[in-house]
Amino acid sequence: MFNFDYSIPTQVFFGKDQISVLGKQIKRYGSKVLIVYGGGSIKKNGIYDKAVKILKENKIRFWELSGVDPNPRISSVRCGIHICRENRLDFILAIGGGSVIDCSKAIAAGFYYGGDPWDIVVDSSKIKKALPIASILTLAATGSEMDKFAVITNEETKEKLGTGSKCLIPVFSILDPSYTFTVPKGQTAAGTADIMSHILENYFNNTKGAFIQNRMAEALLKTCIKYGPIAIGEPDNYDARANLMWTSSLAINGLIEYGKKKGWSVHGMEHELSAFYDITHGVGLAILTPNWMEYVLDENTVNNFAEYGVNVWDIDKGKDKFHIAHEAIDKTKEFFKLLGLPSKLSELNIGDENFEKMAEGATRHGKLGEFKPLSKEDVVNIYKASL
Amino acid sequence: MFNFDYSIPTQVFFGKDQISVLGKQIKRYGSKVLIVYGGGSIKKNGIYDKAVKILKENKIRFWELSGVDPNPRISSVRCGIHICRENRLDFILAIGGGSVIDCSKAIAAGFYYGGDPWDIVVDSSKIKKALPIASILTLAATGSEMDKFAVITNEETKEKLGTGSKCLIPVFSILDPSYTFTVPKGQTAAGTADIMSHILENYFNNTKGAFIQNRMAEALLKTCIKYGPIAIGEPDNYDARANLMWTSSLAINGLIEYGKKKGWSVHGMEHELSAFYDITHGVGLAILTPNWMEYVLDENTVNNFAEYGVNVWDIDKGKDKFHIAHEAIDKTKEFFKLLGLPSKLSELNIGDENFEKMAEGATRHGKLGEFKPLSKEDVVNIYKASL
Repeated sequence: MFNFDYSIPTQVFFGKDQISVLGKQIKRYGSKVLIVYGGGSIKKNGIYDKAVKILKENKIRFWELSGVDPNPRISSVRCGIHICRENRLDFILAIGGGSVIDCSKAIAAGFYYGGDPWDIVVDSSKIKKALPIASILTLAATGSEMDKFAVITNEETKEKLGTGSKCLIPVFSILDPSYTFTVPKGQTAAGTADIMSHILENYFNNTKGAFIQNRMAEALLKTCIKYGPIAIGEPDNYDARANLMWTSSLAINGLIEYGKKKGWSVHGMEHELSAFYDITHGVGLAILTPNWMEYVLDENTVNNFAEYGVNVWDIDKGKDKFHIAHEAIDKTKEFFKLLGLPSKLSELNIGDENFEKMAEGATRHGKLGEFKPLSKEDVVNIYKASL
Repeated sequence: MFNFDYSIPTQVFFGKDQISVLGKQIKRYGSKVLIVYGGGSIKKNGIYDKAVKILKENKIRFWELSGVDPNPRISSVRCGIHICRENRLDFILAIGGGSVIDCSKAIAAGFYYGGDPWDIVVDSSKIKKALPIASILTLAATGSEMDKFAVITNEETKEKLGTGSKCLIPVFSILDPSYTFTVPKGQTAAGTADIMSHILENYFNNTKGAFIQNRMAEALLKTCIKYGPIAIGEPDNYDARANLMWTSSLAINGLIEYGKKKGWSVHGMEHELSAFYDITHGVGLAILTPNWMEYVLDENTVNNFAEYGVNVWDIDKGKDKFHIAHEAIDKTKEFFKLLGLPSKLSELNIGDENFEKMAEGATRHGKLGEFKPLSKEDVVNIYKASL
């Protein structure tokens, strides 16, 4: 196990009607708020009205940035910074899923940055300071409600890049599982795949002696496997939504990553896919993950996959380890299918026309990932296997 | 799952040589420090010298309270408060295990309390404010390095009571697994039993839908089961010490308790035992836990025990659920024996002479525990079964 500094500063208010803390909590940090949201579903399901009522009751002034896209654009970020600067705002409230929160984070950091905000997406070391942000989560998926990362798309250059800084971690997040009752089946499925991918990216790792982290990762995976299908079948099952929501946060807040060497694989490949084709992140991950697994399975990695098969998928440990590994990968693929997710790029009308360019992008900083580092050629091969 | 507010404010510096952060971290909070420690083992193993050298280099003045007992006494607390007030100290550094940290917490709160500090042990609502405290942990057991609780013994009244407040959570804790290499076998075993008891007290609970919490609890239990015997057999096995140390913190920092109804059982019974006989807390827990399990196993609780047997002890899930439950309890008992811990009170020369008085104490606030509430008579019966 490697050394680590544990610090998870986000205060989480989890459960039904926890929005009641909103006014008191915001007033700890600011008084002029930018509310950031997406396509308007929060107006249909009443969350917008609840939040605005609380702000008014607490005499907190607010401005709005709406229409943030699922793969949030740098143009939205620029617009948000403009509103904050013009009106000297001091707090950002994201109401939505990961895209809205990520966009809010980039605005929060861009507010203090002198140049164009794309610079701080390309180079996170340029982030020195940020406005405080909070979130009201409406989708269990990215974990952005409790982490330091933001992924932003540059629509002109077709780049989708991740940035991050400790000062971007939300100061508080309100997680009310009932706010996800209205999330459509497809988005629930994609969110579950996204959560599982975060866990798997940490789980398949070469760090020796990180036993506790791996057992906790398995705990989180089992939660997704149990409750993903239930949430899709019974959208207003509170326990299913609650378990998925809390798992989305724990998957990426550091808990299962502390003490391990960092280096993810599949996210880098998927960011290229959604930068080029604007597909849903979780859908791309569900397609790529099993093919990545098959590609990196070999004599060196088989024990990790066998452990995964036995501990997560309950496969008989008496079987041959390669047999267990293949069965575990098949079960992963079947599970994503069961959630109703596509398993091939061709189902999304994506062909091989951009594989070279995308693989180039995914490996722009060198080989991809820590578990089995991938060259540009490896990435092309995984894209091809996913066709 | 119940609503919860997640907040784990302790910053943990985990790993080899993390003591290097000590000076910088203390200076964030204070400049005149009370160092609290126990019987002097930290002078033998060099940790005292390392800490003092860093304080001197950073021109941080310090005073000392040494000789804190394994079941820390209210008289030590009074003494610590006196030193802090006389010298107007502003920070407390605990170097040791749970007893030293608990004593430090009571000093930190007692510093601001007008009356005798035993009052704030009896009634935690009297704790309004506390000096900031930090810990350098030398024993993986109580989890006090990351929680809000303190257990203090009143040697005159033979009472051992727990108190707690958010302001008692350490601001930072240094967890260097190599500092536990010199912990004797017996203390390593008792510490492991203590950690497991914290997990089991949260795990055996009636809250519905707390799936993720239960799977994480199993992850932590498996870590104890794997690494407890290794740490005893190979005291300087870093990964074993690291996994146990981190588990001790995660077992009780709130992570596996959030979202569940509170109410422990075995700790209340054990506190009476160690108040009357001054035995090691973890030893008492190891003796009582399997007997408590057998006593509360019935038609209502058998599913919890069967789940425990299958998921933690890898018992064939095809077997009858009562069979699995009994086998799981037997395995728990065998495991504590394997660690070298006693399994009967009579091995500690404890007879039934105080069972009535102890049971009275354990149920002073009403029935004990949430899982299957225990009357005074139940507690006597469990003590008798443990003879």
